Amino acid sequence: MAETLTMTAPLADRITVANTEALRRINTASPVLTGIRPAKEAIPELRGRVLLHAGPPVPIHRLCGPMRGAIVGALCYEGWAETAADAEALLDQGGIRLQSNHDAHAVGPMAGIISPSMPLFEVKETAHGGMAYAPINEGIGAVLRFGANDNAVITRLRWMQGVLAPALDAAVKRLGGLPLAPLMARALTMGDEMHQRNVAATSLFYRAIAPALAERNLRAEALSGILRFLADTDQFFLNLAMVASKAIMDAAHGIPHSTVVTAMSRNGVAFGIRVSGLGDRWFVAPSPMPAGLYFPGHTADDANPDMGDSAIVETLGLGGFAMAAAPAVTGLVGLPSAAEAVGITRSMNEITIGRSERFKIPALDFDGVPTGIDMRKVVRLEIAPIINTGIAHKRAGVGQIGAGVVHAPLEVFQQALTAFGERHA
Amino acid sequence: MAETLTMTAPLADRITVANTEALRRINTASPVLTGIRPAKEAIPELRGRVLLHAGPPVPIHRLCGPMRGAIVGALCYEGWAETAADAEALLDQGGIRLQSNHDAHAVGPMAGIISPSMPLFEVKETAHGGMAYAPINEGIGAVLRFGANDNAVITRLRWMQGVLAPALDAAVKRLGGLPLAPLMARALTMGDEMHQRNVAATSLFYRAIAPALAERNLRAEALSGILRFLADTDQFFLNLAMVASKAIMDAAHGIPHSTVVTAMSRNGVAFGIRVSGLGDRWFVAPSPMPAGLYFPGHTADDANPDMGDSAIVETLGLGGFAMAAAPAVTGLVGLPSAAEAVGITRSMNEITIGRSERFKIPALDFDGVPTGIDMRKVVRLEIAPIINTGIAHKRAGVGQIGAGVVHAPLEVFQQALTAFGERHA
Repeated sequence: MAETLTMTAPLADRITVANTEALRRINTASPVLTGIRPAKEAIPELRGRVLLHAGPPVPIHRLCGPMRGAIVGALCYEGWAETAADAEALLDQGGIRLQSNHDAHAVGPMAGIISPSMPLFEVKETAHGGMAYAPINEGIGAVLRFGANDNAVITRLRWMQGVLAPALDAAVKRLGGLPLAPLMARALTMGDEMHQRNVAATSLFYRAIAPALAERNLRAEALSGILRFLADTDQFFLNLAMVASKAIMDAAHGIPHSTVVTAMSRNGVAFGIRVSGLGDRWFVAPSPMPAGLYFPGHTADDANPDMGDSAIVETLGLGGFAMAAAPAVTGLVGLPSAAEAVGITRSMNEITIGRSERFKIPALDFDGVPTGIDMRKVVRLEIAPIINTGIAHKRAGVGQIGAGVVHAPLEVFQQALTAFGERHA
Repeated sequence: MAETLTMTAPLADRITVANTEALRRINTASPVLTGIRPAKEAIPELRGRVLLHAGPPVPIHRLCGPMRGAIVGALCYEGWAETAADAEALLDQGGIRLQSNHDAHAVGPMAGIISPSMPLFEVKETAHGGMAYAPINEGIGAVLRFGANDNAVITRLRWMQGVLAPALDAAVKRLGGLPLAPLMARALTMGDEMHQRNVAATSLFYRAIAPALAERNLRAEALSGILRFLADTDQFFLNLAMVASKAIMDAAHGIPHSTVVTAMSRNGVAFGIRVSGLGDRWFVAPSPMPAGLYFPGHTADDANPDMGDSAIVETLGLGGFAMAAAPAVTGLVGLPSAAEAVGITRSMNEITIGRSERFKIPALDFDGVPTGIDMRKVVRLEIAPIINTGIAHKRAGVGQIGAGVVHAPLEVFQQALTAFGERHA
């Protein structure tokens, strides 16, 4: 790429070339689910008493309620603490090291806690090289990602580790790996935007994996338990959409002079982005409060600031960016009409470098989703990326209390642009 | 209902009351899949050497190629003939009696042949009473419904009878029956119109049935074979959408003074309709040729006139009537744009008595599909019901050669209206 320009080419031309390369990589990256592995085998960072979490790095004393609850659960799950009180003490006394998922090629929804024993989806990006990881979706109700950490949560995590993960791993390997992009492209033609709505993608994944699961001669009870868990979890694919998006956006990361945003993420306190041409530095601002609809009995007073690595799907051009593909989501996130959903997708076209060549929206006559956020356009037009999001209760373990949209804070794009300017001054 | 009007109420008022009742029944009918049964146990008409077929009744000497081929296959499958030549002779010598599916509360896609040994979906309409039946979808390629009748076709039918049907029946019974309307309503929010596109409904059905299938302790090979067959058949749910639609429209049939069309169907030669207030009489005209797109290597010269009971889904308000729900179908059936699909759904509102209260289209801000075709409106406005359809080769066994849309012939609605006028003169 560098060869195509002389050293004296103006910066704008270099950026154009770099962003064209970023778009090419986004359009050609091929994430393939290759198996399910214990986190400690997949991620070298997970040696010793280390946990990974969603969003940019966060000091222990600033952890939000749900993330703290999830950490307590993970410490009990790992057997590093016997009780919640022991776990809190261990955490506060500095006995645990925290690290950002994104820094370990991983992503997780909401609190996004990954501990060494957890099984992770392993995704190989076969076009440009690279690996990405995500935990398996736990279903709904009281779940670790919202900070629940009681016995039922830990028991489910152990079942996922001992029963679900080995079966899924064997089935995926029997399939010779499962390419995720074609499945996602198809789900986008079935009303999923793959953040708030994954029912089509989950169903397609289910159909792909069930015959291979059945070939394994599991006991009927174990097999039907696995199939029932998958069938009951409409958002099961969210974690796969996230890890596929992470693998794709990592392929576009690290291109000198590229102004494309390669990660947007939140830890419940701070909202951070990374930019392709600016390495692994996070640009952060306070995490915004989602605007949306609350489930009965809850109000904005109960809400935690936005949280989770799930905005990686918007970074790719799905989720809020693909709102026009998912008119059934509009009511859920508080939009007044399907026309509004189309308007949001069109407005995201203003801040992206192109359209996806494979993720297409039938209702827009198969226009590709807006893909590759250009931080320059965000700053110049003051149009913030829109993220579809679940709203978590600020108290650990209560769970999801609503859904809505969040506008990424413009401040982080301004910071990144300033840093870019300084680097190339 | 009759009590609400005096005997001297003008006919138009009686029609309004009757059609209001028809719409109420369409909106409240509850089709539940209760099992899979051999046709001869389910349908009393199937005693002796009788076959059921799609569309209105048709004399043997006028049978179209694909339907004739399917009959030959069914005769071999039943063991009533050893070879295709024997089967042809048996048919031509009057050794087989043919009867319309609709006259036996059944529906079948394309040739729609039902023979006594075939397993049928059994659907109970639990709100108003009534049963409906349909054969199980055979998948794609060389299949009986397109007139293929070689050994592979017969072998597959025997596997469906001996392996697939008992397993599905046990799973459905283990679920305590499967209500079909909620599943269909959900699939409509996932881009299916349930005639040309059933991938979402099939996937949802798959998720519902697979855990119950797995509980049965089948051998791994049998279970994975069943799951693989279902997973490979995107249109598997078509037959279930048809039988559910039949059960719903039968609930609205036989209401005196109702001008609502309760069946539209084609036998590859004639196109027929039935009207709620006109009993079991068929009004027929020559079956039209579909307009659409042909698969490579085929042209309109190869096409059979439109065929199959599948237009029962349009009679309910799905398929072509719900085109706006399925923008991904537009290209397949030769429409230029998603806007055109919305236009078709809007135009079908002109000829229907109301909107569905449960089958809703997210892209139209959850407007219900146009439901309950009023033959008076069709005749007055000269707007023909639009049917999404597969195009069959006119030669038996070649299979599907394209897809498109068909306009129901206005003539049948004019005939029916004349008959209605004579009855109430």
